[in-house]
Amino acid sequence: MLESGFICICGLPGIGSVGKVAAEFIATSLQCSTIESFFSPGFPPQVMVSEGLANLMHGELMRPREREKLLILSGDAQPLEVLGMYALAGEILQSLKEKGITDVITLAAYVGESTEKVLGAATDPKCAAVLERCNIPVLKSGAVGGLNGLLAGLAPIYGLRGICLLGATSGSESVDLSAAINLLAAINELLNLDLDLSILEPAAEQQEEQAAADIDMNYR
Amino acid sequence: MLESGFICICGLPGIGSVGKVAAEFIATSLQCSTIESFFSPGFPPQVMVSEGLANLMHGELMRPREREKLLILSGDAQPLEVLGMYALAGEILQSLKEKGITDVITLAAYVGESTEKVLGAATDPKCAAVLERCNIPVLKSGAVGGLNGLLAGLAPIYGLRGICLLGATSGSESVDLSAAINLLAAINELLNLDLDLSILEPAAEQQEEQAAADIDMNYR
Amino acid sequence: MLESGFICICGLPGIGSVGKVAAEFIATSLQCSTIESFFSPGFPPQVMVSEGLANLMHGELMRPREREKLLILSGDAQPLEVLGMYALAGEILQSLKEKGITDVITLAAYVGESTEKVLGAATDPKCAAVLERCNIPVLKSGAVGGLNGLLAGLAPIYGLRGICLLGATSGSESVDLSAAINLLAAINELLNLDLDLSILEPAAEQQEEQAAADIDMNYR
Amino acid sequence: MLESGFICICGLPGIGSVGKVAAEFIATSLQCSTIESFFSPGFPPQVMVSEGLANLMHGELMRPREREKLLILSGDAQPLEVLGMYALAGEILQSLKEKGITDVITLAAYVGESTEKVLGAATDPKCAAVLERCNIPVLKSGAVGGLNGLLAGLAPIYGLRGICLLGATSGSESVDLSAAINLLAAINELLNLDLDLSILEPAAEQQEEQAAADIDMNYR
Repeated sequence: MLESGFICICGLPGIGSVGKVAAEFIATSLQCSTIESFFSPGFPPQVMVSEGLANLMHGELMRPREREKLLILSGDAQPLEVLGMYALAGEILQSLKEKGITDVITLAAYVGESTEKVLGAATDPKCAAVLERCNIPVLKSGAVGGLNGLLAGLAPIYGLRGICLLGATSGSESVDLSAAINLLAAINELLNLDLDLSILEPAAEQQEEQAAADIDMNYR
Repeated sequence: MLESGFICICGLPGIGSVGKVAAEFIATSLQCSTIESFFSPGFPPQVMVSEGLANLMHGELMRPREREKLLILSGDAQPLEVLGMYALAGEILQSLKEKGITDVITLAAYVGESTEKVLGAATDPKCAAVLERCNIPVLKSGAVGGLNGLLAGLAPIYGLRGICLLGATSGSESVDLSAAINLLAAINELLNLDLDLSILEPAAEQQEEQAAADIDMNYR
Repeated sequence: MLESGFICICGLPGIGSVGKVAAEFIATSLQCSTIESFFSPGFPPQVMVSEGLANLMHGELMRPREREKLLILSGDAQPLEVLGMYALAGEILQSLKEKGITDVITLAAYVGESTEKVLGAATDPKCAAVLERCNIPVLKSGAVGGLNGLLAGLAPIYGLRGICLLGATSGSESVDLSAAINLLAAINELLNLDLDLSILEPAAEQQEEQAAADIDMNYR
Repeated sequence: MLESGFICICGLPGIGSVGKVAAEFIATSLQCSTIESFFSPGFPPQVMVSEGLANLMHGELMRPREREKLLILSGDAQPLEVLGMYALAGEILQSLKEKGITDVITLAAYVGESTEKVLGAATDPKCAAVLERCNIPVLKSGAVGGLNGLLAGLAPIYGLRGICLLGATSGSESVDLSAAINLLAAINELLNLDLDLSILEPAAEQQEEQAAADIDMNYR
């Protein structure tokens, strides 16, 4: 079912940068180019400067070079206030609907006790069943906050289906690469994306060794 | 007077969940089904997930299976900010007015010293007199905050009458079943709802025994 | 000049309730009746209940029973947030303009070192000169915050003149009757209102004696 | 390139008042007069009083007496909230666009380790290259916050180019005159403004001596 739709994968900054790192890895792997920028008066009021070039905070909708029926959304930030989050999510979903998108998959973090590396949720029961058939267990009870929650939750109001894929993380690292890799492995299989995740693994292992060493330090 | 009108009973989450528990008990007892959902950019920006199904936070307007001229409103949350509360209350009242509602009864908590279990207030003197005739003493001086206050207070602007029924509570429990039962007993009599409250009483007694035991613990 | 205009005296709640107490005393003395209510989604989200009657927080524009070319504005509260203050002030000024008002005089508190009991400020130099001719010294440097500042400051945008009369107060009392009386004496003379302030003086004296007694207590 | 455009120099209050002091010095030196005032419901809700005259907080767009193709923008404050900042920046840029402005240069503070006295950034690469040719090194990595960031960052959305000039400051002084002078020297050269900065230098030296004396005090 999912493969026959026109899908947008969304990963905005959040806990452990899990969703943003995963979405941007997909965008790089599939050689995406920006097709639309989203600005919001709810974003932090600042320009980011890199090598002398000033850029207002924004979200970016990107299209893969070759693969059709797929878009990727990421961004610099989430709006600071609730009203701004709802407004931006609505603006993005309106644009996705006009482009023919049928399914919005958001990548986010799951902080809490879980024996699963990736958990899923969907706005309609059929989608939730598809997740389970693809070996993605569904979240029994919880909440998904911020833009990654709203983009999925508001999707039905725009006639779209919403799916959340949640990568389990301790929430203690500012960037949790392992959680992002777990999410990427799940969506790789779900959508047959042909991503090569082996590039990310050495960095993740190094991060884990570092974390282990840090913990070890605490006992000396 | 009240019985001849078209009444909406509202119980949104608040102190002790008194109003929400009461409204949802009525909705279950009268086998209500949802006829309208209310979304608000003021709600907490998150989707609630249950058994893999993701649902945006919302309010629900429900209709009893058999009883006519009655609607029930409850919801997942109150808007986080003042502007959102006023906006949502206005949207709900506009919808109620269009459906022919004449009286809005909100169920809320009363925290403060009171020898009465239930207190009432109304936006017009005749309604207040009806409450007293129905053995619901009126609040002499005070304020009712949040959506349960605004829905009653804004009602006259939409040509409706507003009534608040307040269940006295200590405010120390996250769910005060006894206060909810007191409210239900009052509205049961006020509107001849034929609710069977005996189902709730064992749970309330257990809660009280537990509370008494907790207090006892403090003295050991 | 001021006496030939159509004047609105505004006193909203603020420090020491100075402006509100003064405005409401004028309204009572001149037997005013309400001609317009102002609601704001920026007001605290609650209904005030008195003797069982529930009233949404609001501002009230009142007309004296006999005196022409004068209106009084007071209210239950100020909006909680800045945007709400500007919006409500604009709505009020628009309504005043439509009614033919030419001058908006706001009554407010002045907290700070001052040998004067009442200070004035105005949005145009001629008005400021009139104040000085009426023995109301002008504020050399400072700021007037909240609705009582905005209603005067925004007045020129609506083609009206704005005047602030500031009653010096320590800011330590929730109701500073003496400061309110000083303001009333000043405006009484400025507008020939024929107010009898002797009713208020015993209460103010009692308050001062009480304050003196309280201070005395601190040294024992 | 810059000299052939129609330029607006903006300096709103911010860290060390660096941008505001610099913009107001230019406005005074070039004998500017106000051509437009900007009000915002995001400004602090107060009127400023000076010698009895009450003025609502506002921004001012000014035109030099003789020099053409140049405007200066300064103001009393920045909006308190993010939404208000974006709204005011948009309103100002819309007005600048309608007046034919092509380049918006904002003057702001840079707090952080830097061996440079002035750093630059621009919204398009050609502008950034011009800065470097004029001996203004570009910021390698960082962010510019508040109105001085937004006015430059939002400029491209209005078809304008945005440039930030940042004066390095410790951020510990409420008014950092030396940083303002450094900014003025840079823009003086960049735009051939013929400003005489020697008037400001004695005051800056005095401030530095005072600061040195203060530091010395800490060691005694």
